[in-house]
Order: sequence, then C-alpha cells, then structure tokens
Amino acid sequence: MNHETKTSLDRMFFPRGLALIGASSTPGKMGAVFTEGIIRMGYTPLYPVNPKEQTIFGLRAYPTVSDIEGPVDLAIILLPTAAVRQTVEECARKGVAGAVIFSAGFGEQGEEGLQLQEEIVGIARRAGMRLIGPNGLGFYCPASKIASFPKVLMEKVEAPCGRVGGVSQSGSFLDNLTIVGTALGFGFSKLVSSGNESDLTAVDFLEYLGQDADTEIIVSYLEGVRNGTPYIEAAKKISRRKPIIVWKTGITESGARAASSHTGSLAGSREIWEGMFRQAGIVVVRSQEEMIDDLIAFHYLPPPRGRRVAILSGPGGIGVGAADTCADHGLQVVGLSEETRRQLSTFIPSVGTALGNPVDMGPAILVNPEIPAQATAIVAADPRVDMVLLIGTDIPGFREGIAEVVKTLDKPLVTAQTSLPQHIPEEYNYYAGRGIPVYADASRAARSLAALAHWHEWRSRQ
Amino acid sequence: MNHETKTSLDRMFFPRGLALIGASSTPGKMGAVFTEGIIRMGYTPLYPVNPKEQTIFGLRAYPTVSDIEGPVDLAIILLPTAAVRQTVEECARKGVAGAVIFSAGFGEQGEEGLQLQEEIVGIARRAGMRLIGPNGLGFYCPASKIASFPKVLMEKVEAPCGRVGGVSQSGSFLDNLTIVGTALGFGFSKLVSSGNESDLTAVDFLEYLGQDADTEIIVSYLEGVRNGTPYIEAAKKISRRKPIIVWKTGITESGARAASSHTGSLAGSREIWEGMFRQAGIVVVRSQEEMIDDLIAFHYLPPPRGRRVAILSGPGGIGVGAADTCADHGLQVVGLSEETRRQLSTFIPSVGTALGNPVDMGPAILVNPEIPAQATAIVAADPRVDMVLLIGTDIPGFREGIAEVVKTLDKPLVTAQTSLPQHIPEEYNYYAGRGIPVYADASRAARSLAALAHWHEWRSRQ
Repeated sequence: MNHETKTSLDRMFFPRGLALIGASSTPGKMGAVFTEGIIRMGYTPLYPVNPKEQTIFGLRAYPTVSDIEGPVDLAIILLPTAAVRQTVEECARKGVAGAVIFSAGFGEQGEEGLQLQEEIVGIARRAGMRLIGPNGLGFYCPASKIASFPKVLMEKVEAPCGRVGGVSQSGSFLDNLTIVGTALGFGFSKLVSSGNESDLTAVDFLEYLGQDADTEIIVSYLEGVRNGTPYIEAAKKISRRKPIIVWKTGITESGARAASSHTGSLAGSREIWEGMFRQAGIVVVRSQEEMIDDLIAFHYLPPPRGRRVAILSGPGGIGVGAADTCADHGLQVVGLSEETRRQLSTFIPSVGTALGNPVDMGPAILVNPEIPAQATAIVAADPRVDMVLLIGTDIPGFREGIAEVVKTLDKPLVTAQTSLPQHIPEEYNYYAGRGIPVYADASRAARSLAALAHWHEWRSRQ
Repeated sequence: MNHETKTSLDRMFFPRGLALIGASSTPGKMGAVFTEGIIRMGYTPLYPVNPKEQTIFGLRAYPTVSDIEGPVDLAIILLPTAAVRQTVEECARKGVAGAVIFSAGFGEQGEEGLQLQEEIVGIARRAGMRLIGPNGLGFYCPASKIASFPKVLMEKVEAPCGRVGGVSQSGSFLDNLTIVGTALGFGFSKLVSSGNESDLTAVDFLEYLGQDADTEIIVSYLEGVRNGTPYIEAAKKISRRKPIIVWKTGITESGARAASSHTGSLAGSREIWEGMFRQAGIVVVRSQEEMIDDLIAFHYLPPPRGRRVAILSGPGGIGVGAADTCADHGLQVVGLSEETRRQLSTFIPSVGTALGNPVDMGPAILVNPEIPAQATAIVAADPRVDMVLLIGTDIPGFREGIAEVVKTLDKPLVTAQTSLPQHIPEEYNYYAGRGIPVYADASRAARSLAALAHWHEWRSRQ
C-alpha cells in the first residue's frame, strides 16, 4: 500500500481528536449509544457534534465540526443520508484525516445513491481526506479505545488488545465476531467494516493489516471485490507471514442477489473463488462457525510439523467417524509406533478397546478417568504423530488431566466434546480458558486441524 | 421381519424378569453401576446374579441364573470373556428369551474370539434364545424402565418415553445421544446398540423399529453392514412412513481400518453408500452434530410444502451467507410477493435494509426489537414461502416475540444464533424449551431444513 494511505489510516486508528457527528443524549438513538460507548471505552478528546444540544453525556456539544478548536483526525458520521454531503464538506475544510460514514442510503440503493456517494468521494479526494463506508460500521481498535460497532458499544464489550485483525464487507458480521471472540479470550488489533468501499477498500485494509506489527492473524468476510486480482495478490504476499481466514459469500446465484442489495458488490462462483484463494494460501471457510473454529485453532495452536494426526477416543464410534473426517480433509490417520502401543497396553485393558489409530480407550475410562491423560501424553510423544485429536467426555478428572498434559506439549492438540455446549457450558469454558481448542463435534475439530496443517504446509512451500 | 424375531424382541424389551449376570455391590464396578441404575429406573423383578454375594443393593443375589424361581425373559451379561459361554448355556437351559452380551473380547479381536462367538451363537440358536452383542451396550427402553447404557445409568438420565428410536453399531454413540437428546427434550421408544451382531443385526432392529407403533423417527449409526442390500431394502420401505437418519462411518480407508478393529465390520466408499442411502429415502448425516441437528428438525417441525425458504436477518452478511448455504443444499431462496414487501415496508426503515430474500432488517432491530417478530409473521404468511430461516440475536424482546409467532405457525421455522451456545446457554435453551429448532450457525440451520424438505419430497414421490 502507498505511504499516504498508510499514514491516513494510522491517523484514523490513533486520532488526536474524534468528532462524533450526530451525537445525541436521547436514550435509544444510535448517537447516544455511540457517545456513551466511546466515553466508557475511555477515548479522549471526544467531540460530540449536534447543533441542537449543549452538552451530551457531560461533554460539550459542538454545533459543527468547524467549531472544534483542537485537531480532529477522525470523524464518525451518524447523520441521515441527506445531511452527509454537507458534513463531509465541513470535515474536509477542518482538515480531518478521515471519516467513517456509518450512514446508509448510497451506492447500495441504486443510481441516485451511487451518484451522491461519488460526489462525496470527490469532495474528500480533493481535500486529501479518506473515507470508510458509507453503509459500514467503521472500526474497532481497542489500543486507541475507539469503536463504532453498535452491538459492541451497546453490550459494553471490552476486548483486550491482541493479535487478531479483520476486514469485512459486512459490519454486523464483525460486530458479532468481536463479541464472540472476546468471550473466547481473543484480543484484537484493528477490525474494519469497509461498507460500500466508496474510497478505502477491503484491499487497502488487508494490506494495512498485512504490514501491521500488532496483527498476527487476519479474518475477512467478503461479498465481492470489484477487482479480485489485487485482493488475491495482496493476500498471497501476506499469507507467507500470517494466516488470512476468509469467508466469501454471494457465491451462489441466491447469495449473489442478496449481496448486491447488501453492499452493492459483484459475486462469482464458489469453485472459482475458493480455488484462487487456496492457491494464494488463504484459509477458506464457508460459515461464521467455520470462521470461529479456524480462528481458535490458529490463535491457540503451535505449528504442526506435518499432517499426521492421532485420534484418542472413549466412544469408539465417534472415533471411527473422526478418522473418516480427518481423511476427508486430507489429514493422515497414521499407525502408531510399536513402542507407543506397548506403553498404552500396560494400562489400557485389552478387551473392548483398540490400540490402533484411533486409540479406542473403551468404556473403561468411565471408571478409570486417569487413563485418557496418560494415553494422550504417550501418543503425543510418538514421533509419528504431528497432531492430536482427543474425543473428550465430562467424566470427573478427565479435563484436569488433559490440561496438565497440554502444559508441556509442543504439538497441536484439540478436543471434541460429545455433549452440547448449551448443556454443559462449564466444560467448554474450562478448555477455552486454558487455550485448549474445544469443538462441539469431532468433524469440526478435524476440519480446523486440517486448515492449520494445510496453511503451514503451503507456507513452507513458498 | 419374521414373527418369531419380533416376539423374542418384544419379550426382551418388556421382560417378565431380568437377570443381571455379573451384578455387584462394589462401588466403581460396572456390575454396581448397572444394578443401582436399573433399580433406580424402577424395573421389577430384577434378579442380580453373582455367586459371591448374598444381597446387592438390597436385592437377593442369585448364584446362577438357574437359581431364579420366576420366569426370566432377559439376561444382561457383564462377565469377563472367558465366563460368557457357560453363562449363555445356563440362560439357554433356563429358557431365557434373549441375552444382551455386554462383554467384549469376541469377533472384534480376531480368529480365536470369532470362534468363541460362533460357539455361543450355536448354543443360543439351539435353544431358540436370541443375542444382542457381544461387545455392545444392549438397549434403552424407558417404557419398560430398562437401560444397559453405562453413561445413562451413571449420570442418572431419566429420558421420557417418546417417538425417537435408534439402532447403532456404536454403543457409546447411542449412550451419548440419549444424554444429549434427553437434555434437548426428546423422548425415546427403543434404542439398541447392536455390537458385534453375532445373532441379531442392525437390519433386525431397523425392521423392528419400522413396525413399532411407538417409534416415529429412527436414528442409526452404521460402521458396516455385512449385507448392505437387506438394510437398504428395509430402510426404503420404512422411509415411506418414518424418517431414518443415518450416520455411516468407516467410509474412508482410515475410517474403515478403525471400524474393523471396533466392531469387526466391513466398510465401503462414501459416494457409493450415500448414493444408495439417498435413493432409499434415508436422511444422510456425516457427524454426530449433523445427526442431532437433523433429529431436532424432524422432531419439532411440521412438514414443509416445498423447498422455498425465506431468510430473515438482522446481520446482513450472515444473511447473504445463509442464502448461499440454502442454495448449496438445494433449497430455493425465492422472491417474496409484492404484498409481503409492501407490508414490510410499512415498518422496516428504507435505509440500511433490504426487502428481498434475505429480508435484511438492518441495525434498526437493535433499537426496535419489535421489528423481527412482526416481519417474521408477515413473511411466513407469504404463499410463496414454505419455510423460514431466522437469524436470531440476543437483544431483549426478540425471542419472546418469535416464540409468540411460532405458536400459530403451520410452516417450519428455525433460528440460527450468532452467539456461541456456551456463552449464552439460556438463549439456546429458551428456544429448545419451546420446541423451536435453534442452531449455532445459519449454515447448519439451512442443512437441516434441506434434509427435512428433501425427505418429504422423496416421500411424496413414492
């Protein structure tokens, strides 16, 4: 990305002053949600702009952005569509580095809206001011204590600073992901909702996150990219250093029609997109759930040395199914070494069990809960094994034993539960709280282990 | 199925007397788990058999099954492998209708075990006694207050009688499914773990469940069927009346190897199996999670009239992704009628929303939580719509409004949440408690809606 764009984005993410245009003290209005939320996050100096109010949540309100004395690097515009143009002009005069246009009613709503959008871009360009949006949620940057994500602000989410960055053509997707990710213990660098991309595009934000030292994993929701080639070229360069997990929608005819009324972007076929993405080292997902599943794996797991996976299971059938899913996703369900099998045979009963791969520990674990941890440690130490998939259970002592084993493990280990997370949340939260990836199904655990292994393999070939 | 097999199974599921051979009063032993568990369930008369004990949990213990005075229709055998043969002989002499052989160490462990297994089958056949197992967990039948599923017994699960029946070549799969299903509010008719199928096979149990008036939905886990044709022929006949949801594993080379050491069965390729299953009207799933997802849909939803689905969403991006997934699974994401759009436009803001399909209700629902219920009722009434997929959110009032709409709805409606079930379990449990299918991801909701629509379509073509 060019130096000017980078400088503008730096100023927007870490502004010397923030004008919130359309701030309000009326409960229930977005302007109030934003003002109250950003005050709570702790950003200063915040300048609420609203000609009809004197003070808003204890802060002096300004009639226009021109009335603010200090420098303003970022404006967040929450006004009705018709008022945006004049406000952008005022921001340009004030010397604002960039504006987030939250307001909708532009390019996504046909020809008239598109024309207005282009006029606004023209105004901004002549002043050297950059735009995020319109029809987007702006960004979340915990390091600078700024958020323009409504659910994050309403639900008083306080995510820590951290390694996950993101760019999305759906703001609500990222708004939700922030909430889910915070509850999962992730920290965030910069999350950006690019909206209609009238000026700054997904490619700009991707490149920014690519060179951003605070960002180590990138998530991206895409409905279309006007020009696919720059996105994929940027992604390919970045993927050599950090994983980019992409959910591309608008990929079927039905989805494409929906996307065109959502952010006005063009879509293409699933095969074409996914093929190009995989060649560029992009980690491809097909749903919010897969995005979160893979993010958990990339966030918490060490790099695997290869694709060879060992499965340990109490419930035999679920272990057999897991072997199928691992194979479906290109993992190798290898035989364990003679020495590993010998060690396992010293404490796993010979009847109702199997010391292959999967290691079927049998119903004995229900009455001997020390078996799983001991077996996991031995299997993980086998030089033929690159990764471990453990089918977990909620028998007392099981999880504590596994948590102890993971402490000294240098290979990826994930667990899959047979209970549903809404029924035994403490089981899931126990593992998550210790950075052990936990999935509600072995097939999802296998898919994410495979995603991790494939990315590391792709990277080593570059 | 022949009349004799049916009569034997009737006697086993509803026995006049149950001999628990290998009962124990020693805490931690399976024999104790079983005795205590079956007493708690309330079955009588229960005869614990153990020559070394006088009384077990307050019941008189018998040295052998021959010492029991009353009739014994069912024996559950928990003994070590070496003791099983003699015990089966004694059961045969006593005139037991059938035995569950929980013990392992037979056909699944090579030639010697297989020979012993065949000898035992010979003994049983000559006496007209039937066998479930060995190396299986037996069955669960809440109507007769009998369970031989260890986790169900240990965790004191008390499932109600109900419409779900099952047959599984993995006992632990069914043991877990019982626990999960009970927490989801399902009731069960008969769940059978067929183990090594030395005598009674998956086909026998499938046919039994097919003609069983108490069973309306059948779930089945299969690793292999020695003779695939009878299974598929039986399934095809039954599928005309009730759905059969099947998870077939051992389908890849890795899975097949694992299956052969698990229950000694032969596997085949995924394409071949799934193709044959679909032609027979079987609902195919590829994981425990998909099995539960589909079971929820078939258990709670009315039949859809066709494949046309309407999607309603607050978060626009997730709605676009859902449209893709619906199309991937063969659902039709149809345009809504002019009248529906007109009605929606009277209360959904015109900016930042879209009145297509998906109906993108925009961020307005965050501050106007009455919108989703109103919109859902209008969309569901559209004659072009056969099913509704609603992307849910945890804003106050949302779920209560939807629950009200569903009360009078005669079309399938499912919700997909954007939060994780382990973080907001009460959200998931609220819907589940009202019989509204709730999924942690829109793609899973779409897959299960499609499974439901496809089965009803298949059925109407027969």
